[in-house]
Amino acid sequence: MTRPDIARFKRYFPILDWGSRYDADTATSDLVAAVIVTIMLIPQSLAYALLAGLPAEMGLYASILPLVAYAIFGTSRALAVGPVAVVSLMTFAAIGNLGLTDPAQIALAAVTLAFLSGVVLLAMGVFRLGFLANFLSHPVIAGFITASGILIAFSQLKHILGISAGGATLPELIISLIEHLPKINVITLVIGVSATAFLFWVRRGLKPVLLRAGLKPRLADVLAKAGPVAAVAVTTLATYALSLDARGVAIVGAVPQGLPPLTLPSVNLDFWASLIGPAILISVIGFVESVSVATTLAAKRRQRITPDQELIGLGASNVAAAVSGGYPVTGGFARSVVNFDAGAETPAAGAFTAIGIALAALFLTPLLYFLPKATLAATIIVAVLSLVDFSILKRTWAYSRADFAAVAATILLTLGFGVEVGVSSGVVLSIVLHLYKTSKPHIAEVGLVPGTEHFRNIHRHKVKTHPEMLTLRIDESLYFANARFLEDYVHDRVVADCGLKHVVLQCTAVNEIDSSALESLEAINRRLAEMGIKLHLSEVKGPVMDRLQRSHFLDEMSGQVFLTQYGAMKALGPVNGAPDIKKTV
Amino acid sequence: MTRPDIARFKRYFPILDWGSRYDADTATSDLVAAVIVTIMLIPQSLAYALLAGLPAEMGLYASILPLVAYAIFGTSRALAVGPVAVVSLMTFAAIGNLGLTDPAQIALAAVTLAFLSGVVLLAMGVFRLGFLANFLSHPVIAGFITASGILIAFSQLKHILGISAGGATLPELIISLIEHLPKINVITLVIGVSATAFLFWVRRGLKPVLLRAGLKPRLADVLAKAGPVAAVAVTTLATYALSLDARGVAIVGAVPQGLPPLTLPSVNLDFWASLIGPAILISVIGFVESVSVATTLAAKRRQRITPDQELIGLGASNVAAAVSGGYPVTGGFARSVVNFDAGAETPAAGAFTAIGIALAALFLTPLLYFLPKATLAATIIVAVLSLVDFSILKRTWAYSRADFAAVAATILLTLGFGVEVGVSSGVVLSIVLHLYKTSKPHIAEVGLVPGTEHFRNIHRHKVKTHPEMLTLRIDESLYFANARFLEDYVHDRVVADCGLKHVVLQCTAVNEIDSSALESLEAINRRLAEMGIKLHLSEVKGPVMDRLQRSHFLDEMSGQVFLTQYGAMKALGPVNGAPDIKKTV
Repeated sequence: MTRPDIARFKRYFPILDWGSRYDADTATSDLVAAVIVTIMLIPQSLAYALLAGLPAEMGLYASILPLVAYAIFGTSRALAVGPVAVVSLMTFAAIGNLGLTDPAQIALAAVTLAFLSGVVLLAMGVFRLGFLANFLSHPVIAGFITASGILIAFSQLKHILGISAGGATLPELIISLIEHLPKINVITLVIGVSATAFLFWVRRGLKPVLLRAGLKPRLADVLAKAGPVAAVAVTTLATYALSLDARGVAIVGAVPQGLPPLTLPSVNLDFWASLIGPAILISVIGFVESVSVATTLAAKRRQRITPDQELIGLGASNVAAAVSGGYPVTGGFARSVVNFDAGAETPAAGAFTAIGIALAALFLTPLLYFLPKATLAATIIVAVLSLVDFSILKRTWAYSRADFAAVAATILLTLGFGVEVGVSSGVVLSIVLHLYKTSKPHIAEVGLVPGTEHFRNIHRHKVKTHPEMLTLRIDESLYFANARFLEDYVHDRVVADCGLKHVVLQCTAVNEIDSSALESLEAINRRLAEMGIKLHLSEVKGPVMDRLQRSHFLDEMSGQVFLTQYGAMKALGPVNGAPDIKKTV
Repeated sequence: MTRPDIARFKRYFPILDWGSRYDADTATSDLVAAVIVTIMLIPQSLAYALLAGLPAEMGLYASILPLVAYAIFGTSRALAVGPVAVVSLMTFAAIGNLGLTDPAQIALAAVTLAFLSGVVLLAMGVFRLGFLANFLSHPVIAGFITASGILIAFSQLKHILGISAGGATLPELIISLIEHLPKINVITLVIGVSATAFLFWVRRGLKPVLLRAGLKPRLADVLAKAGPVAAVAVTTLATYALSLDARGVAIVGAVPQGLPPLTLPSVNLDFWASLIGPAILISVIGFVESVSVATTLAAKRRQRITPDQELIGLGASNVAAAVSGGYPVTGGFARSVVNFDAGAETPAAGAFTAIGIALAALFLTPLLYFLPKATLAATIIVAVLSLVDFSILKRTWAYSRADFAAVAATILLTLGFGVEVGVSSGVVLSIVLHLYKTSKPHIAEVGLVPGTEHFRNIHRHKVKTHPEMLTLRIDESLYFANARFLEDYVHDRVVADCGLKHVVLQCTAVNEIDSSALESLEAINRRLAEMGIKLHLSEVKGPVMDRLQRSHFLDEMSGQVFLTQYGAMKALGPVNGAPDIKKTV
């Protein structure tokens, strides 16, 4: 291989980079982090599988090989990959749409979904399409995560209440819960409520207590993270000892013991056709969640992640999930923060976590038989309620009504019509609102700020203008959506003004003039010429000027192109001749 | 009614405005124009009905009541409404998709399509959604019209050849024509080819001949417009006299005599569901075609049209078509130009044309029995070939590759997959390309042009800069699609530069900062602060500043906001201290 070949090869295998400098110190840090993440991940992986409507072991399987794959291909030093809440909910929705009842078919759908997500992510990585994720605006993501958190919490209430209920939207969930409410199981409710209360307390109140008891902060931290494991252990033991399963408490039951099986995704094209849409959504949402946390954590240590290589890493993880009985995975927010805080220095921490989960799959699964589903539901509810944050509504309302509309629509549509409709509508709406805003651009009439060479809005600043000269600053790129608007604006402004001899379009904010806008400029020039008014341009930017010079417009234009607006004013109207000071601020 | 009520009422009925000043002179002008347009419209309306796959009389019906409705509600003084080529082709495609065989059902589908188009147009007018048409960029429209012209010409070849062939895309049409080629009817071919040749000659060569023969220009014009009528008369007589229909020449046959029947659109919701998509496309395309020609013609006489009221006018026309046995109509390009040139002064010319067509429906229809379909096909081919114009490809290639891509895709997809796929893809593609461009904005590093207060790109101009200060001019509004790009750009630019103390973002071209971009600015500010670099803004526009002041960003920002970039340079670095002149142009 030549040197550039090697560089390209290494780019696809970040492990070659950090692996070559790996030493015992780093390994110790990674091992400590891996132990803590493993303790956190065992109950979470079981719970999220339950949330996705899958058997508990699929959660464990999704936490072994995918982590190894990410360790090889990923660029983030701290990202903890595995099953996460929102992607699990989206998996549930996607598989629910297929209307399957056979558990084998449901499991096949899950691995196929992981496979398709993996392929989509890999393709986006190879074709460097990571920028597509930018079309999910921050408000839409925030709204979607909040609404998903609410949906997830409501979907788990049935396990806390010990009833069977269903639904993919908030109204469906609420109606179903109310319908089944009479069949409530009191013992399950007691387990569920106390587990939830305990976990909330662990999250907020345990660490201070341990610190006051004299424990070292590091140990107090680990113990606080072990809260869910304690809840699992206690409720499992209680269920076993008191035979609560015989009294109607739903339990996890037999979980196969051993390493993940080798699985293959379906090759049925109809199956693919109905799963590819959800797979794309899951990929993009998963990628966005993962990249956000990875970027934040990398910045704290002055490291960088490579978004396009992250797509490869997450794609490989999902393909790994597909061949080892798992379901779609991504980098989890809370878990990655824990991994980072626990001192993980390289992706090897993820590989060590995988070993921990593999050991759990080999040896701990028989112990999970009596684990009440209510305990897992409590774990989920406590985890997702931290995602629910309505403050984005308040912030966007104050800052931008268009962003507020996008958030509100995303939240309402996600709650009312499910995750897929919600997030798709949010993306489409934010694009439509953006296009709408640019289709009616702000146009300011400007004048010279006295004592400077600077031009500002006559309605906001005390400026000098000249009666024979109208200067319009168009605050938008000129393209098809606003081409006609400009034509109409100039026409309406000019017909009312008799003494006018020059119209200058100040192009400081015009970043593009496309073919449609060029035709509009030609029309404006022709129409002004018929009225005896000359059209000039000023402060046209380099790239825009390059393009205009390739057209005939500059030859046809009645006026000139000025480097600066000040130059235009000096040339067209005596600056100090008869300046009329317009409106003060 | 109060005065504003009356004004609003009058806005919806432009006839009240021009009608109150109507006099005998205007009436004479309108009548002359109406006669010429009627002569042109009779063969066209029959031919376009044939193109739409409908009985010939539906073309006549679509040229009566809709013209009256437009005369009442329309704002253009010269627009000639009726069946047009592109909308007829789209009607053919829309009805073809339904797979109907019963002629009554096909006719019902046509009136239902007109009704739905009318409702869509009226709704767009009432809700002032005319701006939506701006999202059809000029290149996409040009490409679509050219491709439609080719499709239409090919679809009519079967009538010229006297064979039965079909298809909605160019490959289908070509294959079908080749398959049926052996069954060619030679007499039909002779009629078709000579009619086509005659009409081409009339279009190009007749007027000069008449002028040389000493006719007055006005009369020469009228006679040249009557070319298609002559072709119709001659070929009909020949077919009748020589009994050519018995020798395989396809004729129009019995056309019902009389005024349009009262028809009602279907109220079947399934029918509506399958026609609403095409109805929206037909409405938008029809509106764009109509508004383009109406604007051009109005500008020539310094008149104005009101796009939102035009929607009402066209909507009323289509509803009128639906209740009188017609099919979707709009303002035709060629016909409106003829109407204008012939001296039409008010929409009354349209109403007079309607009377002409009504008389034709009452008295001329029996004469149309022996009219060969080949003659009508020749009329269509000659009319649409003038729409075919590939020069848009050359122009956009030179000016903008993105626009070229949009045109080329629109042409290829329209030819290859039909009108609906073609125009929808063109619109989506031009929006996607626009968003893509804005997601990777041009960012220029700028310096002071010596002797001015003006800042330009250091790579294009000879400018002064200061080593401790980096000024970036972002040539795009900051919004979700490019928020991360800016973050990465600033980070990459800054890490390489050790002596840097100030980063100034010159916001002349930033027309908006949405919530996502605000978060990115906060992240940039935080990251720069950690490196000991201050972030400043300069030349922030009024509307953007108003919004920033409603957030906490300005309090958190490490640096200041400067009114001018020159002010920023004076404050942050000694302008005349150690200026290093960067790269010359």
